[in-house]
Amino acid sequence: MKFEFSDNMKNLKSSEIRELLKYIHMPGMISFGGGLPNPETFPSKELKDILDDIMDNYASSALQYGQTEGLPELKDQLAEYLKRDENINVAPENIMLTTGSQQALYALPIIFANPGEYVVTEAPTYVGMLSSLTANQVKSVGVSMDDEGMITTELEDKLRDLKSRGTKPKFIYTIPTFQNPAGYTMPLDRRKHLLEIAEQYDIPIIEDNPYGDLRYSGQKIPTLKSLDKNEMVTYLGTFSKIMAPGLRTGFTVSQPEVLDEFNKLKQAMDLATNSLSQYIAYEYIRKGIIYKQIPKTIDLYRKKRDIMLEALDDYMEDATWSRPDGGMFLWVKLSKNMDAFKMLKRAINNKVAYVTGSAFYHNEPELNTMRLNFTYSSDEDIKEGIKRLAKTIKEEKQSL
Amino acid sequence: MKFEFSDNMKNLKSSEIRELLKYIHMPGMISFGGGLPNPETFPSKELKDILDDIMDNYASSALQYGQTEGLPELKDQLAEYLKRDENINVAPENIMLTTGSQQALYALPIIFANPGEYVVTEAPTYVGMLSSLTANQVKSVGVSMDDEGMITTELEDKLRDLKSRGTKPKFIYTIPTFQNPAGYTMPLDRRKHLLEIAEQYDIPIIEDNPYGDLRYSGQKIPTLKSLDKNEMVTYLGTFSKIMAPGLRTGFTVSQPEVLDEFNKLKQAMDLATNSLSQYIAYEYIRKGIIYKQIPKTIDLYRKKRDIMLEALDDYMEDATWSRPDGGMFLWVKLSKNMDAFKMLKRAINNKVAYVTGSAFYHNEPELNTMRLNFTYSSDEDIKEGIKRLAKTIKEEKQSL
Repeated sequence: MKFEFSDNMKNLKSSEIRELLKYIHMPGMISFGGGLPNPETFPSKELKDILDDIMDNYASSALQYGQTEGLPELKDQLAEYLKRDENINVAPENIMLTTGSQQALYALPIIFANPGEYVVTEAPTYVGMLSSLTANQVKSVGVSMDDEGMITTELEDKLRDLKSRGTKPKFIYTIPTFQNPAGYTMPLDRRKHLLEIAEQYDIPIIEDNPYGDLRYSGQKIPTLKSLDKNEMVTYLGTFSKIMAPGLRTGFTVSQPEVLDEFNKLKQAMDLATNSLSQYIAYEYIRKGIIYKQIPKTIDLYRKKRDIMLEALDDYMEDATWSRPDGGMFLWVKLSKNMDAFKMLKRAINNKVAYVTGSAFYHNEPELNTMRLNFTYSSDEDIKEGIKRLAKTIKEEKQSL
Repeated sequence: MKFEFSDNMKNLKSSEIRELLKYIHMPGMISFGGGLPNPETFPSKELKDILDDIMDNYASSALQYGQTEGLPELKDQLAEYLKRDENINVAPENIMLTTGSQQALYALPIIFANPGEYVVTEAPTYVGMLSSLTANQVKSVGVSMDDEGMITTELEDKLRDLKSRGTKPKFIYTIPTFQNPAGYTMPLDRRKHLLEIAEQYDIPIIEDNPYGDLRYSGQKIPTLKSLDKNEMVTYLGTFSKIMAPGLRTGFTVSQPEVLDEFNKLKQAMDLATNSLSQYIAYEYIRKGIIYKQIPKTIDLYRKKRDIMLEALDDYMEDATWSRPDGGMFLWVKLSKNMDAFKMLKRAINNKVAYVTGSAFYHNEPELNTMRLNFTYSSDEDIKEGIKRLAKTIKEEKQSL
């Protein structure tokens, strides 16, 4: 039969990043395009032991449907972990387990915004939030970033302007630490300013912190959630970057009234999070493996970041880039007349791939930008890939 | 802060069944309320061996992000399983893995219907579809059932009537085999009639078949998908009832153009299905364990069904009930003046729980109905629980 789809599906496009996964598998390709953790960081041996324990001790529960809000034992462990790791003081009832933090990114716009209403994001921002906003027909206002993340004075100007036109955004979405895609981190004073503005305009904040544990240099900066005196911040965490992404286990920390709404929606979305994955995460924290694994991951990624930064310093001309203290990504800005999307074909011919920066904007993309992942490729490939990218940019410039 | 939620969240209520889970854990309670498989049916030993193999051989892939459409090796195995098990001839590109089949129930109304548009369901029908329709503001027309499932002549009347008013439902949702909640199974001639009607009115069918493998008596009847000559049927399957629900692994079988839409939406919903769970399902089919496990599950559940039917015959007065050939549920109709929802408090006082039938209707519920699960309780508890239920009904009648 000839199928007719809903109007909404017409807006939704496949993510450029998912499409790029194809190129990763082309022979000889060096891809900085994905957001994949390096499998060397997966605690495979430890997880094998944990799985043995689970199947010996809790098989009936680990294979059964769980509660929509998550495994109680894991929520207890997470409360302790959040206190120890991020100085976030919450009770288990402030925590809900999710099918990756992407599920929270999908649900929160539905919970807070009607179709056609606005939210605020950084520009650029994480594509997973953009695809959720598009799927749910929620509009966004982007706030520019500098080396210190979201420019809060611009945020203030935009909120004032929106207010004068009778529009109140439904939340402010931010990745303040090692931002994806840009790699910037918001310093303490700007975090405080952001909280003040949110309070003044009475707008909830969604703090997405998938990379907070992965700091390679500089001092730890408190999360917005730990600074939040007015319970305005909904905090998103994930085991994807500190354990394994294939287990699709994330968590949302918020007020019970927000989680109650999320719970109702999650019942319709997938009933409950994977029980086996939650038991794995529970044992991973309980046994303290998480605290041994993170430093190993940091050592591996720090080296890769340094190799990429050094290669950029050595080979790259007519471009600037962020120097992230952590996370997984660098943000490269080419000269204004360059278009990273148009250049991608040449890059792929030269056997190097990246994500064009325009994928990370809802409106008014900066076309001369690209995101580079430094965690997945081998050390040699990082160096060689940056050489190829520098060559590609040089060739592209000559062709203009 | 005081949170404001979207208009849409106001429609969404917590599922009565999820709420009932609380009572399962009250001391002495016998609950026929849940839809839980019996943990005795979980192939724990076999899954432990499978997990060892996976961690030895594919840990890097099983812990990494997977493709949104699902693990290619599992899709290959599923194509063979569908051929062998249900005579469904499809290629791997007709298959998509999902986070439980609930994810498909959530996504398909979004894919096919705009808010305010109509779909057709059986009345009563599965609550997971009803909560998705509510969450997505899609309306439904219910078609009554008799012992042979959806009454297709009534369907025809309703579609004719809707057409005369310019309304075309976006799909027909059916659970033709061991229906949840009613336990009815549609015979072959009615299945053919349903397909004819769908073709005549050019409306896609969603065939939900979570229980098809669990037949305890009678002859196997072909799935709608296997009878579908015009590619009108989207088929939903799950490992929840034949392996383990906690692994949240379902699958959707449809035309590539439908799955392309689903893929775009799933990228926003949760990126990809749990990789470890997919490797488990892959090995579970590849090693043929599935074909040994299903007969064991059938033996266990057949006995439990028979015990419940016998207890109903022995103790229950002034009520009728379905006599399902498979699945997990019985449907009880009390006399017309009874209200199963009002009676639930008395039942819980008598330490027996069920789901009131009204939970399974979008519009115009039959208040004198209830769903009983016969797979979860022990054999003794089934008998004792039915005694308590019969006593509850008698007391309730006397109080009216």
